[in-house]
Amino acid sequence: MKSIEWIGAKVKIIDQTRLPMEEIYIETADHRVVAEAIRKLKIRGAPAIGIAAAFGFALGACEFHGEDKGKFHEHLARVKETLASTRPTAVNLFWALERMERVLQTYSSGSVGALKALLVEEAVRIQKEDVEKCRRIGEFGVQLVPEKAGILTHCNTGALATGDYGTAQSIITSAHVHGKQIRVYVDETRPLLQGARLTMWELSTLGIDATLITDNAAAFLMKKGFIHLVVVGADRIAKNGDVANKIGTYNLAVLAEKHRIPFYVAAPTSSIDFKIANGEAIPIEERDPSEITEAFGKRIAPRGVKVYSPAFDITPNELVTAIVTEMGVCRPPFSESIPALESAQETID
Amino acid sequence: MKSIEWIGAKVKIIDQTRLPMEEIYIETADHRVVAEAIRKLKIRGAPAIGIAAAFGFALGACEFHGEDKGKFHEHLARVKETLASTRPTAVNLFWALERMERVLQTYSSGSVGALKALLVEEAVRIQKEDVEKCRRIGEFGVQLVPEKAGILTHCNTGALATGDYGTAQSIITSAHVHGKQIRVYVDETRPLLQGARLTMWELSTLGIDATLITDNAAAFLMKKGFIHLVVVGADRIAKNGDVANKIGTYNLAVLAEKHRIPFYVAAPTSSIDFKIANGEAIPIEERDPSEITEAFGKRIAPRGVKVYSPAFDITPNELVTAIVTEMGVCRPPFSESIPALESAQETID
Repeated sequence: MKSIEWIGAKVKIIDQTRLPMEEIYIETADHRVVAEAIRKLKIRGAPAIGIAAAFGFALGACEFHGEDKGKFHEHLARVKETLASTRPTAVNLFWALERMERVLQTYSSGSVGALKALLVEEAVRIQKEDVEKCRRIGEFGVQLVPEKAGILTHCNTGALATGDYGTAQSIITSAHVHGKQIRVYVDETRPLLQGARLTMWELSTLGIDATLITDNAAAFLMKKGFIHLVVVGADRIAKNGDVANKIGTYNLAVLAEKHRIPFYVAAPTSSIDFKIANGEAIPIEERDPSEITEAFGKRIAPRGVKVYSPAFDITPNELVTAIVTEMGVCRPPFSESIPALESAQETID
Repeated sequence: MKSIEWIGAKVKIIDQTRLPMEEIYIETADHRVVAEAIRKLKIRGAPAIGIAAAFGFALGACEFHGEDKGKFHEHLARVKETLASTRPTAVNLFWALERMERVLQTYSSGSVGALKALLVEEAVRIQKEDVEKCRRIGEFGVQLVPEKAGILTHCNTGALATGDYGTAQSIITSAHVHGKQIRVYVDETRPLLQGARLTMWELSTLGIDATLITDNAAAFLMKKGFIHLVVVGADRIAKNGDVANKIGTYNLAVLAEKHRIPFYVAAPTSSIDFKIANGEAIPIEERDPSEITEAFGKRIAPRGVKVYSPAFDITPNELVTAIVTEMGVCRPPFSESIPALESAQETID
């Protein structure tokens, strides 16, 4: 299943805010509609946000009329700014926009028409590569799953959140395909309930044994011995292995440590921000209070109350058992294994 | 504010499932309506459930026609069974019903009419005593609150959950009244959002600085240094100090330990079950899946998915810094301090 597709000169996005009750698609040739879809979480999940940003950038290029390369670059600078200002935490957004800009630099002598074609090609390549990365994350991660296991996951890390397969969910699917007896417990993931709405929907479709729980039930389940591993995705990973991910992830990491349960993070290397030393430098997006006080159009808290709604938290590296990437399973000390990933990547590049 | 009142020969209950958007009252002379109100969480909170059970028992007595004491006792046995089968975890329910039965035993020679009057009197006394207990919990607990403090609380432990004042919330109110500079962070408390709906409503009314957060944000706030103490209520406390309370409480206790934040439990001694050795013996109520999949009438998860919804969890005594009761602040080792409470109580009795 694809959360986003490039079709002709348009982008088609499944509106994830309406799932699972309605399957509504957005088709647009306007990069601002893509930016708005990212901002409003119609498309979400760090890798999918990266793909959407690349598609938005390519649309922005196609929108330009004329052959004036100076104006083309000025236009694309504005397009980039619009896309970059949508969501601050997931680094894949910035990573994808940089890859798009690199096309402009690499082929600086090309005509506007040629550059448009190259940018579309690059955006589609970013998605294709992400699909392959996710598949590999599943292959590497499956070795971490016992033959019989209760797995706790948070938010949505499936096909919807990525090019396809997912990150943490790719490991789950891979374990299922390999015939391992798994039972997945899915945190509903307040405030936006991506676990209840999206992960439960994807796992049902895949025929994987899944049970929905409130975020509050995680510790109780761990204590009861239901959980043998926790596996989550990431929105941004610092060079020391600190992980920014959906709010509540850090809770799970602390609870996993207390109950001596391995805590795995699954993400493509495009989610690693090699430029920042640790998690403190990761900007944390704050969401609108109405997402909490008026959940799904229904008011649940008194009018005018104060709300604090960070969308992400930071899990310090010492609580992370391993990080599964498309290049393999990365283990502590992350201050060595993550820079090693970077070097290996440069060699491939 | 009173969540439940005895008015003439009727009981008046504010329907907590409709708060804060609607203030709807139930007035009834039928014990079965009270039982249904308990079962459906129209009245909730361990001490308030105890009061409601006592009121329900008194209504049951008043419903009886005739002077046949044998039939009166048979009728009351059925009334007791109806009330006792509503919710399994909060021990106050059983404690209150036992107090009502003791009236029957103590005044076994009385007429049906006299016993009816005595039972009504006892039920009203249970409520009055609870109000006084809650006031004292606030007085004892205030010493645990620094002059300037961020306080995290879970679920609703206010006037609505008790005779008046509340348990954990009585400490908060008392700190506020004593002029301490407090900022309260309120877990929304999924699935039934008692924090968002009820605690935010009560704290707003009291003019106390309160901020609503998702349950998932607790660890992030602790890490940021916003929280100086956690204070929660209890549905049942075992003789060794293990605490059954709203699902998610155990999460908070583990997170508080990790961040070296004191974790306080506030409850009247009527919430202590001196008959059970530890938390493993406390029955944990499971709630209906629809409370999670169809939050407030809106479907948020795919049809037919599996759900596991324990309403409570058990916090082991080693994570509890102190238990604040109407008899004082009870500290570890609880295996000594809780039996000491029981002895002191027997002396008073």
